[in-house]
Amino acid sequence: MRAAVMRQKKLVVDRIEAPIPAKGQVLVKTLACGICGSDLHALKHAEKLVEGAKRTGAPFVMDLGRDVVMGHEFCAELVDFGPDTPRRFKAGTRVCAMPVLIRPNGIETVGYSNDNPGGYGEYMRLMESFLLEVPNGLSTEYAALTEPMAVGYHAVQKARLAEDDAPLVIGCGPVGLSVIAALKMTNIRPIVAADFSPRRRQLAEQMGADVVVNPEVKSPHESWKEMAVYKDPAKAPPLLPFLTGPALRPAVIFECVGVPGVIESIMTAAPPNARIVVVGLCMERDQFEPMFGINKELNLHFVLGYNGSEFATTLRNLAEGKVNPQPLLTGKVGLGGVAQAFDDLGSPAHHAKILVEPWQN
Amino acid sequence: MRAAVMRQKKLVVDRIEAPIPAKGQVLVKTLACGICGSDLHALKHAEKLVEGAKRTGAPFVMDLGRDVVMGHEFCAELVDFGPDTPRRFKAGTRVCAMPVLIRPNGIETVGYSNDNPGGYGEYMRLMESFLLEVPNGLSTEYAALTEPMAVGYHAVQKARLAEDDAPLVIGCGPVGLSVIAALKMTNIRPIVAADFSPRRRQLAEQMGADVVVNPEVKSPHESWKEMAVYKDPAKAPPLLPFLTGPALRPAVIFECVGVPGVIESIMTAAPPNARIVVVGLCMERDQFEPMFGINKELNLHFVLGYNGSEFATTLRNLAEGKVNPQPLLTGKVGLGGVAQAFDDLGSPAHHAKILVEPWQN
Repeated sequence: MRAAVMRQKKLVVDRIEAPIPAKGQVLVKTLACGICGSDLHALKHAEKLVEGAKRTGAPFVMDLGRDVVMGHEFCAELVDFGPDTPRRFKAGTRVCAMPVLIRPNGIETVGYSNDNPGGYGEYMRLMESFLLEVPNGLSTEYAALTEPMAVGYHAVQKARLAEDDAPLVIGCGPVGLSVIAALKMTNIRPIVAADFSPRRRQLAEQMGADVVVNPEVKSPHESWKEMAVYKDPAKAPPLLPFLTGPALRPAVIFECVGVPGVIESIMTAAPPNARIVVVGLCMERDQFEPMFGINKELNLHFVLGYNGSEFATTLRNLAEGKVNPQPLLTGKVGLGGVAQAFDDLGSPAHHAKILVEPWQN
Repeated sequence: MRAAVMRQKKLVVDRIEAPIPAKGQVLVKTLACGICGSDLHALKHAEKLVEGAKRTGAPFVMDLGRDVVMGHEFCAELVDFGPDTPRRFKAGTRVCAMPVLIRPNGIETVGYSNDNPGGYGEYMRLMESFLLEVPNGLSTEYAALTEPMAVGYHAVQKARLAEDDAPLVIGCGPVGLSVIAALKMTNIRPIVAADFSPRRRQLAEQMGADVVVNPEVKSPHESWKEMAVYKDPAKAPPLLPFLTGPALRPAVIFECVGVPGVIESIMTAAPPNARIVVVGLCMERDQFEPMFGINKELNLHFVLGYNGSEFATTLRNLAEGKVNPQPLLTGKVGLGGVAQAFDDLGSPAHHAKILVEPWQN
């Protein structure tokens, strides 16, 4: 099959062997697969990803001397079944699935693995038991956004927002946009979001942010403060003794950037008792001042991915129009365009999410 | 009055002016005051403390060119009242209080302030409204331990432990011992605790740790794992897909060391979904790997101090014998012994908590 292959830290289009489905697995044709920021990170910091996975037990296990086909945000068409597989769906069914396989030796990913090519290739093998049929009427493009939209949904679930909480989203790339979409489905308002890129601030507004901030012009934390004042001061709890000024609603800050220094800058500027949900995947070593966390009793909650229920809920939400992922989708390429798309996504001026359609030119 | 004064990063005994109580304040005679690890940090890193406070709004505001009398873990005797002060208690009453004053310009501390000398001096001024009478029968020594015991109580309250949670205490200095004492008051068992010092491991056992670990011999996290296996596997929730081995109870790890590198070492070794409660006060810049937090969805909760209710509850728990602070108390000195006591506390071979008795020789 044809695929955009990660080979010696470069992306090249080549013919490689199609995967063969084992027991409990299916063979699918990739219809569309989004390019994830983690793939950009992985191409640049592949050794860090593999080393970190080894030290934490995460399933991102790859021999970087061998080919890897990345891509884990896909919609696909069912083609064939492995031996002794229940055949719950007919060939031709459009499906989504979490990009993981349960194998005899543990879990493996689709897309960060030498043996399980991801969606930047024409075919993949998936777990039959993980397949979700794409509901009629939901486009392949939108269905392929289930995975990135599930990431934001998971982060917001983990944040366990209360009615009084006031959210702030730092970074409006695909992760931040996904968090904004998930916040939009709650009753928690206003949604304040910050990004240096005008294009991304525009997408954030389209996705549902109530206030967008350019950090070059104003501190996002200052904008948040203005919005987080209790409208009814009688509802405000007593102030922490060393807080001055008006009572503010509890801060829940979503870190959706994932580069060194961002967590520290948030810890420095966050108000007392803020909960910081770290969704951005920083693969480099980072620094911070524990004293800032302590003086303000901050909570730093690192989150990753989603569970099966959150993934299925996200596909359903997309199908039912509860969330409109349109702003996320900014481009499409064939396999020959993947390397260029990776370059384009490195600068946030134009794109949020680019879909790869391996069967299109 | 006589006091052990912090002057140009040294502790010297000198005569200074006694504080004068203002409206709503009282003058007290210090009966006993514990030496806190934060005071050791403050003597060494005073500029860092002041700078960090400025940047976070915390009330540790000092002009380091002027004298500071530290000491915030005290039991005292009521001597006199400021003007227009309600006089809820008689002169001669033994009292404890949170070491803070509410002043027109905000909150100030007793002990990290140029104007409000702490318990390493003969007299202090305190808020009358914060005074708690020491219940009859509770010794002055134990009453002086209210403050450090409230720190552990607060940390355990913040951890919101559930029945299934399995705690691990890293570091058995005064903070770790206080956390162990607070854990002991819950039904959560076993309490696993680790320290390099044999003396401190012994104190941890006396305070209520069920298992103590020498990290030179065995990883505390390995010992924790052995103890955290569900005794009844039917009660265990489903495993995370990439976890192998027996199901483990949720980890709640208390960081009670407060030196650079400890948070990172815990993040590296912690099991998935661990909650890390950071109680140790690290005043230096630190490093970490966000990816480790993300891959395992760790939660890092920084905590500080206690609230008024927790402080009062701790004094009551001490008076009612619900917690025995005896292991914490390892020495006493007069004002002339404070500097040496600071040196002695720098090495964990002998001491946990040393009380200063300003009126004794």
